[in-house]
Amino acid sequence: MNENIKRTEISELGEFGLIEHLTEHFEIDNIFTVKGVGDDAAVIDNGNKLTVITTDMLVEQVHFDLQYMPMQHLGYKSVIANLSDIYAMNATPHQITVSLAISNRFSLEALEELYAGIKHACEKYDVDLVGGDTTSSVKGLIISVTAIGDATEDEIVYRSGAKEGDLICVSGDLGAAYLGLQLLEREKKIYLENPSVRPDLQNRKYIVGRQLKPDARKDIISYLKENNILPTAMIDISDGLSSEILHICKQSNCGAFIYESKIPIHEETYEMAMEFRLDPTMCALSGGEDYELLFTVKQGDAQKIMEHSGITIIGKITNAIDGAILETKSGSHHVIIAQGWNALKE
Amino acid sequence: MNENIKRTEISELGEFGLIEHLTEHFEIDNIFTVKGVGDDAAVIDNGNKLTVITTDMLVEQVHFDLQYMPMQHLGYKSVIANLSDIYAMNATPHQITVSLAISNRFSLEALEELYAGIKHACEKYDVDLVGGDTTSSVKGLIISVTAIGDATEDEIVYRSGAKEGDLICVSGDLGAAYLGLQLLEREKKIYLENPSVRPDLQNRKYIVGRQLKPDARKDIISYLKENNILPTAMIDISDGLSSEILHICKQSNCGAFIYESKIPIHEETYEMAMEFRLDPTMCALSGGEDYELLFTVKQGDAQKIMEHSGITIIGKITNAIDGAILETKSGSHHVIIAQGWNALKE
Repeated sequence: MNENIKRTEISELGEFGLIEHLTEHFEIDNIFTVKGVGDDAAVIDNGNKLTVITTDMLVEQVHFDLQYMPMQHLGYKSVIANLSDIYAMNATPHQITVSLAISNRFSLEALEELYAGIKHACEKYDVDLVGGDTTSSVKGLIISVTAIGDATEDEIVYRSGAKEGDLICVSGDLGAAYLGLQLLEREKKIYLENPSVRPDLQNRKYIVGRQLKPDARKDIISYLKENNILPTAMIDISDGLSSEILHICKQSNCGAFIYESKIPIHEETYEMAMEFRLDPTMCALSGGEDYELLFTVKQGDAQKIMEHSGITIIGKITNAIDGAILETKSGSHHVIIAQGWNALKE
Repeated sequence: MNENIKRTEISELGEFGLIEHLTEHFEIDNIFTVKGVGDDAAVIDNGNKLTVITTDMLVEQVHFDLQYMPMQHLGYKSVIANLSDIYAMNATPHQITVSLAISNRFSLEALEELYAGIKHACEKYDVDLVGGDTTSSVKGLIISVTAIGDATEDEIVYRSGAKEGDLICVSGDLGAAYLGLQLLEREKKIYLENPSVRPDLQNRKYIVGRQLKPDARKDIISYLKENNILPTAMIDISDGLSSEILHICKQSNCGAFIYESKIPIHEETYEMAMEFRLDPTMCALSGGEDYELLFTVKQGDAQKIMEHSGITIIGKITNAIDGAILETKSGSHHVIIAQGWNALKE
C-alpha cells in the first residue's frame, strides 16, 4: 500500500459516527423505501402494510464468550436482539434469516444447540426462519440475523416523534444484563485460575438470566395497543439509557429531563453494583443489552401507563435548547453523555 | 467439555446438507410466509405484492482475498451476489442492508472505498441501502448483505416448476470467474515470490473482470418480461452449473439432459483453461461465481429465446428416473455430479 494514503482510524468516529459517515451519500431513490438508515429498523411500503427490516451481527469474543454463553442461549439471544428492534418500531416481527460463519472448531452438535435456541425464540415470538447462509470462518463464530416484520402506517413509531411535554417511559428495569456480564466475567477468571472452584451464580439468577437469555418486550407493545396508546417516539435499549435517550433527542429535535430516582433498577442489580463498587445508575445509563423499550407518550396517556407495573415514567421531553439532563437523587443537574457499554467496559 | 459428547464434523454434511439438517424442524407457521429455506430467496406475502428476501455472508480469506480484490470491487460484488438471487426469483430488488465486522487493520478510507462500490451497485441496479450493522471483528473483514425485492404472485419463479420437455437455458457464459480467480491466485504467488514482477493481466481482462466485478442479469429478466416469457424454474449460477441444475432437478422432481457442446464458454475462458491444463467444461460445470441465470422455459418460447444472443439453450428437462445427464462432445453420457467450486479448488 502507498504510504502517502491517508489513514483514519475507525475508533476516531465510533459506531454511529461511522455508519452516518459511510452512508451519508446514499440517497433513498426508491419510492417504496419509507425509512432508510437511522432508526431501529428500515421501513418499506408494499402498498398494503409497511415492511420493517432490521439486522444485527454478533462476533465471538466481541459480543459473546462461549465459555459462559451456552450455544442454545446464544441462538435465542441473537434472535431476541433483532426482534427487540422490530418491536421498537411498534411493529410485529414475522420472519428472520440467520447467516453463520463458523470455523472447524464447531461440531454439528454445537450448531444443533444454537439452532435449538433460535427455534425456541421463533416459537415463542411466532416468527418463521425463512433463510440464511452458512459459510466457513477463519476464526470463531459470526452470526448475522435479519428480522422482518410489519405494521400499518398509523401504527409505526419512529425515534423522531417526541414533543415537548411528552412523558419518557421505560419498560422493565435497567443495568441487570451489564452486571450479569461483569459477574460472569469475574467467575470465568476465578475458574480459569482455579478450575476446582465452581462458579456460584445461585443467588444471582436474575442478572445472569438477563445477560444470557434476555427477552424482547412483545408484551409491552401488546399492552400499549390494547390501551390505544401510540408512543410518540420509541427505541429499544441495547446500548444503555443515555445513548438511547440521546438518539430520541437528536432525531426528535428535543431535550429530555430524567430523574435518577425514577430509573428502575432491580434489587439484585443494585446489590451486584455495590459488590463491584459501581454506581448502579451508571450501570443503567451506560450498561448495554437490556432490550427494554424507551418511549415517549402524550401526558394524556399517563394514567394508563401508570396502571402497568412494568412501565416506569422516568422524566419528560423538554425543548432542544435545554439539552438532555439528569437530575440526581441529591438534586444536582448533569448533562447526559452517551458513553455506551463499550466505554464502561474499559 | 464432556468427552463423551458426540462430535460430528460439519464437513461430513456439506453446506446444503448442513442448512437442510439444521432447519428441518423449523415449521413455517406464519400465514404470510410463502416460501422459507430452500430457494434463492424467501417469499413473504404482504397482501399486495410478494416480498422476496435473500442474504449472503462473505468472509475474508474464505470468499475473497484483499491482495487482489480492491475494496471498491468487493463492495460492488457483495451486493451483486444478493441481487442475483432476487432476479433468480424473477423479482425486482429494491433495498439492501449491509452489516460489517471489521478488525482494526481497516482504516476509514478503506471502508469508504468499500461503500463507494456498494453505492455504485445501488445506483446501477436502483436499490436503496436501508440499514445494517457495523461492529468489530477479531480478525479480518466479514460482510453480510441482505437484499429485499418484490414480485407479483404470478411473476415469481421458484426452482420447483420445471416440467418434462422444458428447454434448459443459460444466460451469458460460464467458467470465466473461476478461471479469473485461478489467474489472480497464480499472479499473487508470483508477486509474493518476486515483488519486482508486476502481474500482467492485460490480455485477460474479461476473465479477471468476471471475477472481480461481476454483474447481475437484470437485463435478462427484463427481456423475458418484455417478451412475456415466464420461466418454469430459475436459479442463479453461483456454485457452478452442475450444482444448480441438480437443485432444479431435485426441487422440480425431474431429470435433465445437457449437451456439453452447447454450454457457452468465452474464448478467453477456453484459452486460460488450456493454459492451466483444465477442462473448460469442468470449469463451467463446477466453477463458481458466474452469477448467470439458469432457467427452464416451455418449448413454445424457444423462438423468442433464440432471438436473444445472450441466452443459450443447453438441453432439456427429462423424467426424474432418467437423472441428470451430460452428453459429451464425443457423444458419451455422464451422470452430472455436484462438485461445486470448493471441490474443484482442492
